[in-house]
Amino acid sequence: MTGSSVKCGPADIRDGEIRSQRDPAVETGDAHVVFIGRIRSPWRERSECPKNMRQAREKSAGDCSLEIDEAWRPGLAGLAAGDYLHILYWMHQARRDIVLQRPRHRETPAGVFSLRSPVRPNPVAMALVRITSVDPTAGIIGIDATDALDQTPLVDLKPYLPAIDHPSDR
Amino acid sequence: MTGSSVKCGPADIRDGEIRSQRDPAVETGDAHVVFIGRIRSPWRERSECPKNMRQAREKSAGDCSLEIDEAWRPGLAGLAAGDYLHILYWMHQARRDIVLQRPRHRETPAGVFSLRSPVRPNPVAMALVRITSVDPTAGIIGIDATDALDQTPLVDLKPYLPAIDHPSDR
Repeated sequence: MTGSSVKCGPADIRDGEIRSQRDPAVETGDAHVVFIGRIRSPWRERSECPKNMRQAREKSAGDCSLEIDEAWRPGLAGLAAGDYLHILYWMHQARRDIVLQRPRHRETPAGVFSLRSPVRPNPVAMALVRITSVDPTAGIIGIDATDALDQTPLVDLKPYLPAIDHPSDR
Repeated sequence: MTGSSVKCGPADIRDGEIRSQRDPAVETGDAHVVFIGRIRSPWRERSECPKNMRQAREKSAGDCSLEIDEAWRPGLAGLAAGDYLHILYWMHQARRDIVLQRPRHRETPAGVFSLRSPVRPNPVAMALVRITSVDPTAGIIGIDATDALDQTPLVDLKPYLPAIDHPSDR
């Protein structure tokens, strides 16, 4: 790895970035998550991944789905094609200790909580997807697009509810 | 605790509900989260909590905020009053093993992934709030409302981005 590499190992940091006093990756943690399944996508390497969901919708060829583990499949009852769903997933390859970040598309650094970067104290990503099909028995939900690597672990699925998920004054 | 109690201990379950083969509460887990701070609210008991964010907006008296731990405060740079923010928080009092649920307002049971119930395999709740003030040095963010218990642990803050957080066809 060279000094100018864009792939950050723990020793790498870009100009203007700030590391936290803490690195959750090496701590025991305050609570634990279980993976309920995984995202299936055409993206096998980080370099192939769309940068965000807008780009994912342009690139996706309808080959994206969620595979839910057997123990959780009864929890799919009530989901239907056409519904919007928030998915929460675990960015298992991301480091967790950079609080002030300078993404490649930005001139100046910004706080992690004002960014949707996968690098965050708890690498939980969130995306709003549209369901294209549901097979509760097989535990497969077809979705319109994803920017996530194939096999990314899933943490939760939540229905989109306009009354609470849309800004009240817009 | 009586059989008709609405507070569920691990032995309690309502008619029509189904328990998963797995109980994440007693497993080691696949990954760990660290709490980055906590929610401050007027609600000291679960019975006082608003049922959802709509009710929270009606009940809240402007006394809701987020306290962010020192190590993560540089991550607040870029947030401003008036911005909308998704907050992810850990429902630490909720059980994790019921996949088919019958909330009190529903006649028939529904899958956990079609509900916003705090009872879920990973008890991460999500709410969209409006920032009313930001003090990055003290680590305090004023918010318009919350349905969460006082001292509920925070897992993440994410900016609301209409381009990806709003259904593309609505």
